[in-house]
Amino acid sequence: MYIVTVQLHVKADKVEQFLKHTLHNAENARKEPGCLRFDVLRHESEPTKFAFYEVYKMPTDLKAHQETQHYKQWRDNVPDLLAEPRVATRYRNVSPEDREW
Amino acid sequence: MYIVTVQLHVKADKVEQFLKHTLHNAENARKEPGCLRFDVLRHESEPTKFAFYEVYKMPTDLKAHQETQHYKQWRDNVPDLLAEPRVATRYRNVSPEDREW
Repeated sequence: MYIVTVQLHVKADKVEQFLKHTLHNAENARKEPGCLRFDVLRHESEPTKFAFYEVYKMPTDLKAHQETQHYKQWRDNVPDLLAEPRVATRYRNVSPEDREW
Repeated sequence: MYIVTVQLHVKADKVEQFLKHTLHNAENARKEPGCLRFDVLRHESEPTKFAFYEVYKMPTDLKAHQETQHYKQWRDNVPDLLAEPRVATRYRNVSPEDREW
């Protein structure tokens, strides 16, 4: 699997708009055949901080996600809502193994 | 859900030992009734960097995890294998909602 985590710090007065765009993207991403998870998380004690946990079968499935209309809409609308640039990190799974997902 | 992400930077010559302890902990954690996921990830391009993605039903389920023998064994053995202290962050799920996990 190919996993992307994203850390996002949203402007305090833009959280509602951020969530609208983000849920639209997440719900549609989960329908992509190569996207196994798209979890949207909110920091326990800092309510303007969010994270995504995205699981793709292969790097090409992430590329396919980035070509979708829902991703492009998110990418074009969200940067203005953030207090600082988002940080993405890419991983491979160690455990569970691929066949166990 | 109550989600914990952990970032870990392992000493280059300790990765094998780290993985032995970590897989033992992860495999047993997944058998806990309150632990829905325990994913072990390795950074795409920095092979001494790892992350965990742990999903618990409730904060009390994380507490229960921390009382297990497999966690205590991990906690006691792993710090010496790390190049710097681990960083844990706690989240709540926004999407999917609780009933969808």
